[in-house]
Amino acid sequence: MRFCSQCGSDQIVFEVPAGDSRPRHVCTACKVIHYQNPRVIAGCLVTHEDKVLLCRRAIEPRRNFWTLPAGFLENGESLAEGAARETWEEAAARVELDGLYGVFNTVHIHQIHVFYRGRLVDGVYGVGEESLETRLFSEADIPWEELAFPTVHKMLKYFFEDRKTGVFPVRVRDLPRRK
Amino acid sequence: MRFCSQCGSDQIVFEVPAGDSRPRHVCTACKVIHYQNPRVIAGCLVTHEDKVLLCRRAIEPRRNFWTLPAGFLENGESLAEGAARETWEEAAARVELDGLYGVFNTVHIHQIHVFYRGRLVDGVYGVGEESLETRLFSEADIPWEELAFPTVHKMLKYFFEDRKTGVFPVRVRDLPRRK
Repeated sequence: MRFCSQCGSDQIVFEVPAGDSRPRHVCTACKVIHYQNPRVIAGCLVTHEDKVLLCRRAIEPRRNFWTLPAGFLENGESLAEGAARETWEEAAARVELDGLYGVFNTVHIHQIHVFYRGRLVDGVYGVGEESLETRLFSEADIPWEELAFPTVHKMLKYFFEDRKTGVFPVRVRDLPRRK
Repeated sequence: MRFCSQCGSDQIVFEVPAGDSRPRHVCTACKVIHYQNPRVIAGCLVTHEDKVLLCRRAIEPRRNFWTLPAGFLENGESLAEGAARETWEEAAARVELDGLYGVFNTVHIHQIHVFYRGRLVDGVYGVGEESLETRLFSEADIPWEELAFPTVHKMLKYFFEDRKTGVFPVRVRDLPRRK
C-alpha cells in the first residue's frame, strides 16, 4: 500500500496503532487504519461414480498443474455458493453439494482454503476459461506429482482415506508455515 | 474506495473488468483492480464445567450486548489461533480447544463466522479491554434477548442441543440475508 485509499495521501506508515498489538498501514494524514485480513478460497471435491474431477490450470500460479476447482470467495456469496461457482467457472460443471469437507489454514500466504464435497450433475463437465483441460481421475490415476497446491493434495488424500469407510468428517488442518 | 492505493489517482471506477463477471473498483490511471473479499471472524465457545463464557461488549457494534469471544482473523494466524487470541483479548482466558464447531455464512455483511469449542484452563478468566464484563452462564441463565449477534445465538443453540448427545458435529449454516 503506497497511497491512502480514503484521502490519497502518500503518508502511509506501517506501525502499531495505539491500542493495537500489530503493525498496520496507517495514513498519517487522515488517520485511517487500513486493515488487511486473510482471504478465503472456496473449492469443491467433485466426484462422478468413482472418479474425482480435476482441472489443469491455464493461469498462474501453477499453470499446467492439476487442481480441484477453487478460487477466491466473493463478497455476496456463501462458501457453498463459491465452491459451486468455481466449479462452474473452471470445469463448466454443475454440482450437487454434499457438505463442508475441508478447512485448511495456509497461514504463510494469508489464506484459508475451504472445500465442499459434491457430485457432478448428470456427469456433465467441460473446460472453463481458467483451465487447459479437465478430467475425471480414478484414485490410481491421480497425478500426485503434478498437483498445483498442498491443500489439494491433502484434500484428495483425506477423500480416498475416508471413502474406505464412507464417513467424511470435516477435515481441519494447518499447512506447514513457510517464509 | 476513493483513491487508488497503488498510484494515488482519484480516477476510480466501479465496473466489471474485462474477463470478469463482477463489478470491482478499478483504477483507470494505473489499471490495477482492487478486489474486496469476505472477512473471517474467529471465535470460541468456551465452557467451564456446565457453563459457557460470555462477554458483554464494551465497543460498538452492539455495545452492552453479550457475545462469545470473537473477532477478525488476522494475517499470520490460523483459525484456532485467532479463536484463542480473541478469547484472551476479550476475556483474559486461556483455552484448550476441542475443535472446529461452527461455520456461518453472513453473506449480507461479507463475513464468515467460525467458532471453535474450547475449555477454560484452570477455570480462570477475567475482563479484556473490549469487554465491560465477562461471566459464566448456565443454560438456564443465558441472556437470549441480549445476545449481540445472530451467529452467537445459533452457536449457543446448537451447543445446548448437541450437549444432550455429547456429539458436536461441525455446524454449517447460512444466516438470513438482509439488505
